[in-house]
Amino acid sequence: MNDYRAIIENSLRDYIPQKQSLEEEVADSMRYSLNAGGKRIRPILALEFCRLCSGDAMIALPFACAVEMVHTYSLIHDDLPCMDDDDMRRGKPSNHKVYGEATALLAGDALQSLAFETMLSDEAVKAVGADKAARAAGALARAIGAYGMVGGQIIDLAYENKSADEEIIREMHRKKTGALIRAACEIGCIIGGADESQIKAAQDYAESIGLAFQIVDDILDVTSDEKTLGKPIGSDADNSKSTFVTLYGVKKCVELVNELTDRAVNSLNVFSGDTSSLKELAYSLAKRKN
Amino acid sequence: MNDYRAIIENSLRDYIPQKQSLEEEVADSMRYSLNAGGKRIRPILALEFCRLCSGDAMIALPFACAVEMVHTYSLIHDDLPCMDDDDMRRGKPSNHKVYGEATALLAGDALQSLAFETMLSDEAVKAVGADKAARAAGALARAIGAYGMVGGQIIDLAYENKSADEEIIREMHRKKTGALIRAACEIGCIIGGADESQIKAAQDYAESIGLAFQIVDDILDVTSDEKTLGKPIGSDADNSKSTFVTLYGVKKCVELVNELTDRAVNSLNVFSGDTSSLKELAYSLAKRKN
Repeated sequence: MNDYRAIIENSLRDYIPQKQSLEEEVADSMRYSLNAGGKRIRPILALEFCRLCSGDAMIALPFACAVEMVHTYSLIHDDLPCMDDDDMRRGKPSNHKVYGEATALLAGDALQSLAFETMLSDEAVKAVGADKAARAAGALARAIGAYGMVGGQIIDLAYENKSADEEIIREMHRKKTGALIRAACEIGCIIGGADESQIKAAQDYAESIGLAFQIVDDILDVTSDEKTLGKPIGSDADNSKSTFVTLYGVKKCVELVNELTDRAVNSLNVFSGDTSSLKELAYSLAKRKN
Repeated sequence: MNDYRAIIENSLRDYIPQKQSLEEEVADSMRYSLNAGGKRIRPILALEFCRLCSGDAMIALPFACAVEMVHTYSLIHDDLPCMDDDDMRRGKPSNHKVYGEATALLAGDALQSLAFETMLSDEAVKAVGADKAARAAGALARAIGAYGMVGGQIIDLAYENKSADEEIIREMHRKKTGALIRAACEIGCIIGGADESQIKAAQDYAESIGLAFQIVDDILDVTSDEKTLGKPIGSDADNSKSTFVTLYGVKKCVELVNELTDRAVNSLNVFSGDTSSLKELAYSLAKRKN
């Protein structure tokens, strides 16, 4: 999957052309966050599910990169003063600290557009066919709106300083981060020509690793240190935020992560191809330290 | 075209389903701005160009509404404190004054997603075919990104307190508002099955009325009053902003608007159908008082 990562990094650079134009500042701001690294989990998932279904990962590349563009836009907006007001992201100053709030806002907006532009370019549509391109782009759009990713962010903000029960926390995670991870897996399947049972299995896998990912986040927030994590620890407690850890404690949470990881791995049984990389990814996310 | 307007108003209401959910606040915030009226010029253009090309306006309805969703998202973000910091919009408190900055930011984000969700829904794709749906959605995405609408906003901000020459002002308008008006006309043509010469004519029409529209805005900012305009006047002068009026004066600007309107009307000659409504629209925009 490290090969995928290198290809994704290069492609993300190519999708924002360098122009001698008056609006170069917003393009710079987009590049700053898009090329700031990160695990690239979502595009990797899209590529690997496409490979699993069709034998060819690369036909999903524009769609995989589109998912990462949406993820990046959501991080830029999430860090803004009117949202989480975070000065640092991935060990670097957050977008608005470098480019100012207005440019950061617009860079996020333009990254969302760029995701759809990338999926619906003449080239991408020609390569996979208009049916699959429209279906994949539609799946992404549905995943990130008011009743998807953005809805999850609103729930998160609403319960920032208010206690939430498990149902609310699950709903928040399922939307705030789960919806995009699920869309990544689903899009890979769509482009790869998967049947309905395979798409369902990919969604199950995504939901399990997505929730496990969030619980690991909650655990690391109380067990890690700022240097390892690349961001301040203890932020949930500072915000009096209800998390899986505040509800159940670290030990129970580690068990829950293991259960979810097993569930994710088992959901891959419907695929006849080699699922070892996806299994490994699920295990590595469960054991990650940052 | 008033029939169109009523249909658009109803459709815009239907595209955000009422749900009993935790994230209802962001949906309310989206509805607040989406249903706040406005001239609905962009969706009307999409419908009318579709009718002109195919005889049926209604097949373009989801695409027309998508353009208005993008327009609405751009207004919400434009009004935010870190952008133009406007408290009023269309004679009502702007979105963030009612719902707060975080929700307004997210409502804008979700309206952009909703535009693509609407164009790429199973229903819309089935009605017009995946080819046209993907092409129309791609055209919209290209029009609103870093080198389109958002690019225009960055140019506008960069020259807020700095003098700009005609070339820069034209480039700013061509992108900030022109790109979306052009996309509206183009999308109507795509859905209506227009040939290349018709698409080119629609783009010419759009560019002329788009620039005329902006020059009328500049004129009204110095000649109208707050009650008629529905927003404070003299804002350009307050911001020491270069406009067509500061460059050439009101009289020359009125001439320019008339020239552009004539050019728009003439570009419609390539269509064999009835273009009287589009001509009337061009004239009425030139003569508008708010």
